[in-house]
Amino acid sequence: MVKLVLDDNKAVATPFAKCLVRLIRAQDSYGSWKEKSDIDLLSCFTVPEEKRSVIPIMGDPDPDVLWRLDVFYGAVGVAIEERSGLLVWRTMEINQEGFGRVLFTTRRLVVLSKTLRDVHRFGFSTLRRLAKTGAKLVNDAARVIEAYPDVALA
Amino acid sequence: MVKLVLDDNKAVATPFAKCLVRLIRAQDSYGSWKEKSDIDLLSCFTVPEEKRSVIPIMGDPDPDVLWRLDVFYGAVGVAIEERSGLLVWRTMEINQEGFGRVLFTTRRLVVLSKTLRDVHRFGFSTLRRLAKTGAKLVNDAARVIEAYPDVALA
Repeated sequence: MVKLVLDDNKAVATPFAKCLVRLIRAQDSYGSWKEKSDIDLLSCFTVPEEKRSVIPIMGDPDPDVLWRLDVFYGAVGVAIEERSGLLVWRTMEINQEGFGRVLFTTRRLVVLSKTLRDVHRFGFSTLRRLAKTGAKLVNDAARVIEAYPDVALA
Repeated sequence: MVKLVLDDNKAVATPFAKCLVRLIRAQDSYGSWKEKSDIDLLSCFTVPEEKRSVIPIMGDPDPDVLWRLDVFYGAVGVAIEERSGLLVWRTMEINQEGFGRVLFTTRRLVVLSKTLRDVHRFGFSTLRRLAKTGAKLVNDAARVIEAYPDVALA
């Protein structure tokens, strides 16, 4: 338990988690989440595996899940922009069966492309996993930009 | 009037219009459109300017309009694939206000990116315009693929 708390503290201190928290707080127009800690804010992104696997994947994905998906990939986009200094566009397409695709592009270059599956069950087992997944996506994108600098600036 | 009919005949004979007709006929599982000519099938894509400008842009876009948008850009994708011999992905995002974006990508390359506006009013003044617009999009994409062959095949 103590280890988990330590892990959570470390996770929210990572650049990606901080970016995500910033985006969430930006939506808090009335200051109702002011008292909440960063860990509290991010806790809606964690779904224990045993709970995750019983979420039904029939019907339209829950609006809350879609919001989380939106803000998570929004943070990925902002983090890529901060890292690369380029303007990044996000295009996300999700069908009603919970499948889709999210693309990050800058000019002519696809910097990141991810297939989305089981959107209904979007979530991470721990905050550490969330931070790690986000950081990995941002790193992947940065590597692609480095590999094709002329297309990214075309 | 005679000129318009001639124009329509020429328009449906263009490669892009043929591709679009093929995609529409592919959805005709029960053969109910078998008796319809190609011009009839494509006529739902033409909206006279004076009618177009009075379509309300409030509320969700009409499902019929979304279908037409889907099949039109589907045909653009297929035509790009036929022309380039590459596998092309389409990602389309439309919000409920009728704004959005359609992206065609192949591997790391964005071959075509188009902002969608006033989706509620999607349509062309004549069949000739439809064929021309489609052909232009396909040509633009082909030019981008030629300009960045290494990224398209990366």
